This record gives sequence, structure tokens and C-alpha cells, in this order.
Amino acid sequence: MASGAEKQTDRMEKIVSLCKRRGFIFQSSEIYGGLNGAWDYGPLGAELKRNVKEHWWRSMTQLRDDIVGLDGAILMNRAVWKASGHEETFNDPMVDCKECKGRFRADQVESTPCPRKPSRSVKECEHEKTEPRAFNLMFRTHAGAIETDDSLVYLRPETAQAIFVQFKNILDTSRQKLPFGIAQIGKAFRNEINPRNFTFRSREFEQMELEYFCRAEDGLRLTDEWLENRLKWYESVGIPRSKIHILDVPEDKLAHYSKKTYDLEYEFPFGIQELEGVAYRTDFDLGTHQKHSGKSLEYFDEETKQRFVPHVVEPSAGVDRTVLALLCESYDEEEVADDKGNKETRVVLRFKPSVAPIKAAIFPLLKNKPELVAKAKEITSALRQEFRVFYDDSGAIGRRYRRQDEVGTPFCITVDFETLEGDKATGAKDTVTIRERDSMTQRRVPITELSSFIASALK
Amino acid sequence: MASGAEKQTDRMEKIVSLCKRRGFIFQSSEIYGGLNGAWDYGPLGAELKRNVKEHWWRSMTQLRDDIVGLDGAILMNRAVWKASGHEETFNDPMVDCKECKGRFRADQVESTPCPRKPSRSVKECEHEKTEPRAFNLMFRTHAGAIETDDSLVYLRPETAQAIFVQFKNILDTSRQKLPFGIAQIGKAFRNEINPRNFTFRSREFEQMELEYFCRAEDGLRLTDEWLENRLKWYESVGIPRSKIHILDVPEDKLAHYSKKTYDLEYEFPFGIQELEGVAYRTDFDLGTHQKHSGKSLEYFDEETKQRFVPHVVEPSAGVDRTVLALLCESYDEEEVADDKGNKETRVVLRFKPSVAPIKAAIFPLLKNKPELVAKAKEITSALRQEFRVFYDDSGAIGRRYRRQDEVGTPFCITVDFETLEGDKATGAKDTVTIRERDSMTQRRVPITELSSFIASALK
Repeated sequence: MASGAEKQTDRMEKIVSLCKRRGFIFQSSEIYGGLNGAWDYGPLGAELKRNVKEHWWRSMTQLRDDIVGLDGAILMNRAVWKASGHEETFNDPMVDCKECKGRFRADQVESTPCPRKPSRSVKECEHEKTEPRAFNLMFRTHAGAIETDDSLVYLRPETAQAIFVQFKNILDTSRQKLPFGIAQIGKAFRNEINPRNFTFRSREFEQMELEYFCRAEDGLRLTDEWLENRLKWYESVGIPRSKIHILDVPEDKLAHYSKKTYDLEYEFPFGIQELEGVAYRTDFDLGTHQKHSGKSLEYFDEETKQRFVPHVVEPSAGVDRTVLALLCESYDEEEVADDKGNKETRVVLRFKPSVAPIKAAIFPLLKNKPELVAKAKEITSALRQEFRVFYDDSGAIGRRYRRQDEVGTPFCITVDFETLEGDKATGAKDTVTIRERDSMTQRRVPITELSSFIASALK
Repeated sequence: MASGAEKQTDRMEKIVSLCKRRGFIFQSSEIYGGLNGAWDYGPLGAELKRNVKEHWWRSMTQLRDDIVGLDGAILMNRAVWKASGHEETFNDPMVDCKECKGRFRADQVESTPCPRKPSRSVKECEHEKTEPRAFNLMFRTHAGAIETDDSLVYLRPETAQAIFVQFKNILDTSRQKLPFGIAQIGKAFRNEINPRNFTFRSREFEQMELEYFCRAEDGLRLTDEWLENRLKWYESVGIPRSKIHILDVPEDKLAHYSKKTYDLEYEFPFGIQELEGVAYRTDFDLGTHQKHSGKSLEYFDEETKQRFVPHVVEPSAGVDRTVLALLCESYDEEEVADDKGNKETRVVLRFKPSVAPIKAAIFPLLKNKPELVAKAKEITSALRQEFRVFYDDSGAIGRRYRRQDEVGTPFCITVDFETLEGDKATGAKDTVTIRERDSMTQRRVPITELSSFIASALK
């Protein structure tokens, strides 16, 4: 019998394989051998990712009046990273092998295979290694015509700093009062030595970060509130609270500027790993940028007439990690009977309808009956105005269902002869079959009600 | 009297000033002196940009069944750029000043000010310059622990190549038949020596690119069709056809691989400049990647049983340029009478409602009447479920209107005593005033009809 760990590895392999096979996620530059730590989202993956981002953005900026958005550049003045401490301290400890010239994370030599002889670990290799040295994780590049120290810029390793350095501009233009937040979604880059676990630890990734500014006395309370708020959000996109481990980071493990941090961890098949951190960062970030830039980042309280640097609570989530968690959470296999009553395994992604890449698939029962095809296409065109839908007329209906199950489409709509000719008993025309993905139950619905049927499932 | 050119410069300055003042666009890292060629979109700019992208994505991928999406990584295998020719030929000619060590675009020495004495141009400066040399515009960085030639990667200078190198994966997973397209929105980077004209020519920018694959015999016809399609799209977001100049690129100016290219140019205040190119690129891109990767990028035609490398038509648009064109097109000033009948200048962004960052602002007539405030907030909460709305209770109604005019909000909704007490003649309660931005006309609408009123304006 397979062990629990083997089962999980097997499960992860199936998910990765499905992602490639159905166009969720491909290796970047695959035809050239790929690029370690970079991934492309194919047609269905791009929609899934868009849905996750849209959910977050809407919940943060549209449904609340105390949070505004920002869309900052990836390239920033180097002074930002000097001030934030990233230039000096955003490092991993590395050792070099003096024989093969390989470079390895010092804290992972036991689990990293030796390049010369992969059956042994780097630690087991007999060749001499250097002492651990700090390796900065920021990607370096140069802006402008000449490559000098003056033109050095980094690819941002997090989106948060853009929020801090634009704090004053946003405060001045949005007329918000404390507490209020600034939300941002965007790409960030970390030159990980050992990208791994599919898209989980990659060199290029996307973040959804909120900085929620407040008075010092409200920091701890708001951190707890944001933890609760974020758990509800994950539940709303389909990751139940029971699958999220909340790590209340012990005081001696906290970053020096943080008074409280919760790590939200998900049970991925490859282990329990961080999805999001909710950190109370005090006034460290604004304070340090105020000091280094010489520009006031203070808030003026009209009621108390006080000026002060606000504190901040940061819920920082990964887009790619959320997408991966949704794929892992949704992936399911079950034994069902096929058209002929034989047992087969049904693969189904049990996405919530609101995050599913395709909301409904529309089928004519038979491809070679022009009336069925025309009606199915007419329905597709109408629904397309409101939802992402997919028309499919190839193969047996059972196979078409399976194809949609595998990509998580919640509803399949079939146009059959009853649609055209009417129900034998009642004579009612223009009804179709809606088949629900999870229960596989079918029911007849008038074409005129399809739109509201799907819309209500998306709420 | 100001000349036409001066008026245009003045107009551009006002637009830039409005963008900063109202939170559309800020300099990246402004508190540290900025970063040349990088911009941050503030709360309203982020929404405007999102609306533009959403329009494009929806029109390309949701409303059609022949185009699918891709969301590819910015970091790609270097071999992609060797194959595409970017590594060798994506250059600007540069000259160095041997005295001041400045580097300048050889084709712009006449218009570039000398760093030592800005009143004269670089060309007029007496110091010796080098011969023009090729300077590659791609940003260089290194992926992995060691900075060697092997680890060199570029920040993509365009999004299109990800589409070409994933062509086969997408074809295999999406089961599309020719002609069909792959659409992508994403960041790209060019190390411009002389970023200029606000966000128009920046080092970091966002593209909306479609690659529409077809049979060779359909290439020219589809190029004309896409030109027409794109003009309609610009019209739909608020850039009228009459403001777009279509440049049919003459044969001797075409890129070597192109059989036809249209440049769509907009009359910006700083000149007529390119918004988008619609290029028929033949089979050059897929052909070159097939050759360099050794992987087949052929299409198999089930009807004719032929295998061939498809041709492609590329409508390639700039997100930032479209946003800037919308700001320029929408910016207007007009003389109106204020509350007391005095003349004042009204600044208004005449955005189409569908791209406006805020769809409606809701005001209680008076801030110090709890019943008015409560009702206005109730309306805000209800509308927020569907639209981006903004509640404002500070200052005179006239000033609140002006603030919304300046950011392009199409509708202002005011809750007044008639809302609470009912119309004197009819007794009808729960109506509000809707004031329309462009005409400044007001009408009374039942609260229950607000949602459908706004929704119909967004169509």
C-alpha cells in the first residue's frame, strides 16, 4: 500500500499533469527547455487567476469605503530598498562547492542533491565547501545607458514598499481618515536558489498586499480583525477554514519590527506551507522611509490636532499560491458509471462557480442536427454577454461532461429534441437540461431563465 | 496670444497636474526623487487602467469564441530572444560624449539638451563624441545564484513572444481551429535612453497584444479586418475614429517579415504618436521559433490533411498609451456660472461611463442632518455591490460636483429633504436628484431605479 506521503506526491503529480494537459499552467519558454522558477498561465489558468485577483480587489476596494487601490511600478528607485533594509538583509545563506562550483542554500544542503551524483546530498559530498555567505535575493538590473552602481535598480521583491513610499500622495489625494488601507496586486521577483513545488516557490510571482494604516492603540485589535477577515475571504473563494492552519508566530520568532504576526498555512500535498501572512508592522515602514527620504509621512489628526506616523497591519497574500491551493483543494477523483454502466474514474475540479474559469458549457445533443446546433449557438451567444461560456459539439455527451468536470465548469447545458419539439406531456418548448458538476443531477430549465440561474450560482 | 504649440504644452501640463493632484498617476518612488521612466497609478488611475484592460480582455476573450487568453511570465529563457532577433537587433544607436561621459541617442542629438549647458543641444556642444554604437534596449538580469553568461535573462521587451513560444501548448489544450487568436495583457520593459512625454514613453509599460493565427491566404484580409475592429474598440472606450490617424506603412519602411502594417496614431498634445500597430507578420515568428527550438509549431488541418506553420496578424496596443489618450481626449475646461452666478472654469474629464473610475458619487444635501446622511449612506452601500461609488458629504454641493467632474464621475446623486418628505405635489417619497456630468442637467429618479439607471449607462 502507498504511504500517506506517496499518495500526496501522486496527487500532486496528477494536479501538475492536469494543469499542463488542460491549459492551466505551462512551464515558461517550455520549447526552449523552460526557465527555472517561471510559469505561464494558459487559457484556463489565466481566467482562474483573474477570478482570484478580481475577488480580492473587489472585496478590498469596491465593497469597502476605507480602502483604495494602487498599481505601482516594478522598477523603483534603489533608495527604497536601502531604506527598507532589503539591500542589506534580504539574503539567504549560501555555500559554494569548491570542486563543482555549485551554489547551494546553506540551510538546505541536507535535502539538495549533489549535481555530480544526485543520489547523495550536497552535505554528503566529500568536496570542500565555503563557509555560508549571504546571497541577496533581489534581481539586479540597470536603468539607463550605462551599467554603473548609480544606475543599479532591483526588481521589487515585494509590492508593499510602493504603498509605503506613495502613502503621502495617496493620503493627500484620497482624503481618507485613519484607519484606512491601500491595496495593490502586482508582480514581484525573488532570485530563489531552489525554486520548487510547482508554482509555490517561484522566482516570479504575483502578490495581493494590503497595508491598513491605523493608530498605534488599534494595531493589535485590527491584526486580529484582519486575520478573521482573511479567513472569511479564503472561505469565499473555496478554501475552507478547516484546511488553514493559523500559526501565531511566537515572540522570539517575530521580525524585529513586528508586534504580532499570523501565518496562514494551507495543507498542500507537498506539506503545510504559507499562503498569507497577517503582520502588525508598527510604524517601522513609514518611519524608516520618513527618515531616509527626509519627507514627512505623518498623518494629521483633525480632531486631536496631533501629527504622527501611523502604524500598519499588513495582510499579504500570494496570487499564485492561492491559485495553487484552489487547484489542490478542488481536485477530486471519484468512481462513477459510464454510459454503459462500466465503472470509470471521474476527475473533477470542484471550484466554486465564482472562481471557475468557465461558468457554463453549452452542447447540442447531436452535432449533425443543424437545428440543435443553431439553438445551442444562439444560447452560447446570448450567455456570452454576461458569462464566460464554452460551446462544444464534439463526442458523446458523457465525454463532453467529463471534459468540463476536469476543468471545473459548474454547469453543462444541453440542447436536445425536447428543446425544439416541446415536452410530450405539457408541450412546453425552449427548455434545456442543466447538469450540475458536483451532484451530476440534471434538471430542465427554460432558456429564458438560464441567465438568472447562472448569475444566482455566482453569488 | 499663445501659439498652437504653446496651448498644447499648456494643456498637457494641466493634464499631468490633474493626474498628480487627484491621484491618477504619480512618479514612481517620488519621495526619493523618482525613477526616470517609471510611473505609479494611484487610486483613480488604477481603476481607469483596470477598466481599459477589462474592456480589451472582455472584447477579445469573452465575447468571441475564437480567442483564448494567456498570462505569461516576464522572465523567459534567453533563447527566446536569440531566436526572435531581439538580442542581436533590438538596438538604438547611441553616441557617448568623451568629455562628460553622457550617452545620447544618435538620432536625437539635435533635440537633446547638453547636460553641462542645457541651453544648447548635444549636437551643438563642442566636445568630441564617439561614433554611433548599438545599444540594446532589453533590461538584463541574472536568474540563479551566479552571475554568468549562462544565467543571463532579459526582462521581456514585449509580451508577444510568450504567445509564440506557447502556441503549441495552447493549440493542443484549447482545441481551436484556424483562424484563432491568443490574447495577453502584461508588463514589458525597454531601457529607453530618453523616456519622455509623461507615461507615453516609459521604461516599464503594459501591453495588450493579440496574435491572430491564420492561413497565409487570409493574412492581408484579416489585417484589414483587425484594423477596423480595433478602431471600433477605441471608439467604444471613448477615442473617436476621427482622432486616430491611420498610417499605412509604406513597403520600404515595413519590417522585413511584415507584408502589411497599419500604425494607429492619436493626436496627443505633444504630437501625433503611435497608440497601436496592426501588423501582418506572416509566418516569421512561429517559423523562427520552430527553427531555433527544433520543436514543431505546425498546425494540422483535419480537412485538407496538410501541416503548415500558420501566419499571424498582430494588433498590439499599449495600456498606458490608451489610458493617456483617454485622459487627453477627456480633459475639458468650460466656463460656467457658480452658485452665486459668478463665472468660473469647470474642469471635467468626459470619460465614457464604462471607463470612468467612479460610476456615481452619492451626497447628502447637508452633512449635519442625520436623516440625510443615513439615507445617503444606505444608498451608497446598496450601489457598492454593483458599482464603484463614492460617498462625499463635505463642502457645498457645487464644490462636490466640481470635484467629481474633475475625475470624470458621470453621475452625482443627491439625497435632499424631498427624498425624505416626499414631493409637495405628488407626495412621492424616496426619490433623489441625479445630476449628469456633461450636460449638468438634473432629474429626479426613484431610489429603486438607481441601479438600473447606472447599469444602462454603462452599456
